[in-house]
Amino acid sequence: MALVVQKYGGTSVGDAERIRAVADHVARTRAAGDDVVVVVSAMGKFTDDLIRLADDVAPTRPPRELDMLLTAGERISMALVSMALAACGVESASFTGSQAGIITDTDHTKAKILEMRPDRIREALDAGLVPVVAGFQGVSTERDITTLGRGGSDVTAVALAAALKADVCEIYTDVTGVFSADPRVVSTARRLPKVSFDEMLEMAATGGRVLMLRSVEFARRHQVPLHVRSSFTWEPGTWIVEEDPTMEEAVVSAVTDDTSEAKITVGGVPDRPGIAAHLFRALADRSINVDMIVQNTGANGLTDISFTVVKTDLDAARDACLAVKEEIGAAEVTTDDQIGRVTIVGAGMKSSPGITALMFETLSANGINIEMISTSSIRISCVVRANRVAEAVRYLHTAFGLDAA
Amino acid sequence: MALVVQKYGGTSVGDAERIRAVADHVARTRAAGDDVVVVVSAMGKFTDDLIRLADDVAPTRPPRELDMLLTAGERISMALVSMALAACGVESASFTGSQAGIITDTDHTKAKILEMRPDRIREALDAGLVPVVAGFQGVSTERDITTLGRGGSDVTAVALAAALKADVCEIYTDVTGVFSADPRVVSTARRLPKVSFDEMLEMAATGGRVLMLRSVEFARRHQVPLHVRSSFTWEPGTWIVEEDPTMEEAVVSAVTDDTSEAKITVGGVPDRPGIAAHLFRALADRSINVDMIVQNTGANGLTDISFTVVKTDLDAARDACLAVKEEIGAAEVTTDDQIGRVTIVGAGMKSSPGITALMFETLSANGINIEMISTSSIRISCVVRANRVAEAVRYLHTAFGLDAA
Repeated sequence: MALVVQKYGGTSVGDAERIRAVADHVARTRAAGDDVVVVVSAMGKFTDDLIRLADDVAPTRPPRELDMLLTAGERISMALVSMALAACGVESASFTGSQAGIITDTDHTKAKILEMRPDRIREALDAGLVPVVAGFQGVSTERDITTLGRGGSDVTAVALAAALKADVCEIYTDVTGVFSADPRVVSTARRLPKVSFDEMLEMAATGGRVLMLRSVEFARRHQVPLHVRSSFTWEPGTWIVEEDPTMEEAVVSAVTDDTSEAKITVGGVPDRPGIAAHLFRALADRSINVDMIVQNTGANGLTDISFTVVKTDLDAARDACLAVKEEIGAAEVTTDDQIGRVTIVGAGMKSSPGITALMFETLSANGINIEMISTSSIRISCVVRANRVAEAVRYLHTAFGLDAA
Repeated sequence: MALVVQKYGGTSVGDAERIRAVADHVARTRAAGDDVVVVVSAMGKFTDDLIRLADDVAPTRPPRELDMLLTAGERISMALVSMALAACGVESASFTGSQAGIITDTDHTKAKILEMRPDRIREALDAGLVPVVAGFQGVSTERDITTLGRGGSDVTAVALAAALKADVCEIYTDVTGVFSADPRVVSTARRLPKVSFDEMLEMAATGGRVLMLRSVEFARRHQVPLHVRSSFTWEPGTWIVEEDPTMEEAVVSAVTDDTSEAKITVGGVPDRPGIAAHLFRALADRSINVDMIVQNTGANGLTDISFTVVKTDLDAARDACLAVKEEIGAAEVTTDDQIGRVTIVGAGMKSSPGITALMFETLSANGINIEMISTSSIRISCVVRANRVAEAVRYLHTAFGLDAA
């Protein structure tokens, strides 16, 4: 008998019919002999509706009150799931984040979990109930209601699975798993039956949309096997697990794409120690996250430093650069929001020479210019023009043999 | 400097504009130098929407989960009111029933308050904040979320006012106060500036729709002055206070009407001790609340016992009577759902002879037959045909000099 944490996202509990389907699936899992803990998100676009309502009411949104408002969403979906379970003959009880013992810091709207005390969840399991837990929310050390930020419901599910030593954390969503590329971009993309935590982290960081980086990191740290699957087809999806040294690894598992970032170039900087540190300290002080960084020093001893940030941070990042332009002796600061990034990810890359060359050759052969390059041991990312990203993904998907038979 | 508890009902926080108006009024109350605790209901018809959603999901509604579902409503309105207050420059913090220390029994969907521990509300007041508290909800001794049943938000407000020793509990609603009759029935009805707790209790029990019996009882027991007023016009409304022995009392303050009940007559019962007890025990065992009871013994030694119940209990009540019909030796059980009740209420009635006679004469002169009579020291109720109730109210309103000048 296994203990399974099942997390259902917003589309999975989007209306009454979907909620009944979820209850039916939980009932079948129970009937198969497993214990189940359910974690739910708010229904469909309910959270967006609440934010719109808040916008109508007031221009100010104290973070503590925003959290109080948004946590109403899971409260509704978890009570409804519990009612649907009762109709299936499955005894259950719903629990808020606070009741489930999810203790966070006081950083409202993006709180971090400090401690898990799921005593009531354990008691409910011991009593033969299916606990239905609100995702996305916790209670702070100051006893106030907090939310965990984007992807927070996945974090709740993984944290509960870790604390309860569950055998697997199933993430139900509206896609059937993790694919070798975004199926909307590459029609021949294949579902990957198994992905390592490391690969999944690289995919999440470079444009994979199925799981947020944070929940994958949490799952890896606590060694919680994840199973990403569809609540519409219920077929087996993608397992995300610790890399198995005995298994033969695909050289390249997936191609990801991302057009959410823009590039800033600080040009004509003297090549002196401390210049880059000064520049990136100025960005960090404004809480701007920098992603790729590339530096090239020319024969004239002057350096161009280019980096990418999410487009919403572009104006703030440019201001930060202009503020230190004189101090660091830069000639100019230019921006470019028409870039995109294409990335290949594969755990087998470490031991396979020639991958980089094949990637560059493929792009070059198709007339796609590479503007920035960044690599890790299992990933290569290239920045290209935004309007060439989709075809770049397709060429690479074919070149690395990922197209479905 | 006074401490004022202000309770805003569903229509008072029905949309973004109304919520801003509430925040503005709270800000003005604070500016006048008073401390304020706000208690809110769910927005408008939000609770009805949630119940409809639950109906769509499942035919079963475990009471614990229904409470979890419904308490989402106040969570939304209290967070929005708090945001609107921030926009008015008023610092506030919202609190759930649980956070406000409202401890109840475990009787889900109609829990009773066992204890008030409003420590966090006191701390917030001491810190200069306006606490915004969820009405209608509490936390049980089993640490589960409970709701207080119909009129529960008023109970929350009165209980908080009592626990905090507030100077007044203001109940904001969509009418301007308590009237001498329902203004939809009697166009000349007047707003009453002041009503005693005893009168208000009788009015609530006989069809007055502004306040529920339960919150008035609670306010009387804890001597909390109530002020019922409009959140649309903000004008002074009706004070409900302890009777002041020095004030000259109106003989009759108000005429109420009620067509929500039906009559059952158990006829031809032998006039023996214990018969009525046996009958009403059978009703009590089925949790049926009986309102008026009239018994007449004829010259033949047989008795007719008539009583009224709310129409929704009529079938169950008839079944209960039929079940004991043989045992008590009754000849027949008949029902009548075409009755209505008209009531006059007035604290001055105690010391004014002739009130009963004037009431009966007024109805008789207009050809309205009286079918049942029930009295207390400050109230007289008559059951008449349902289709004569409205005119009966108008005749009595005029006869007792209540019409507005």
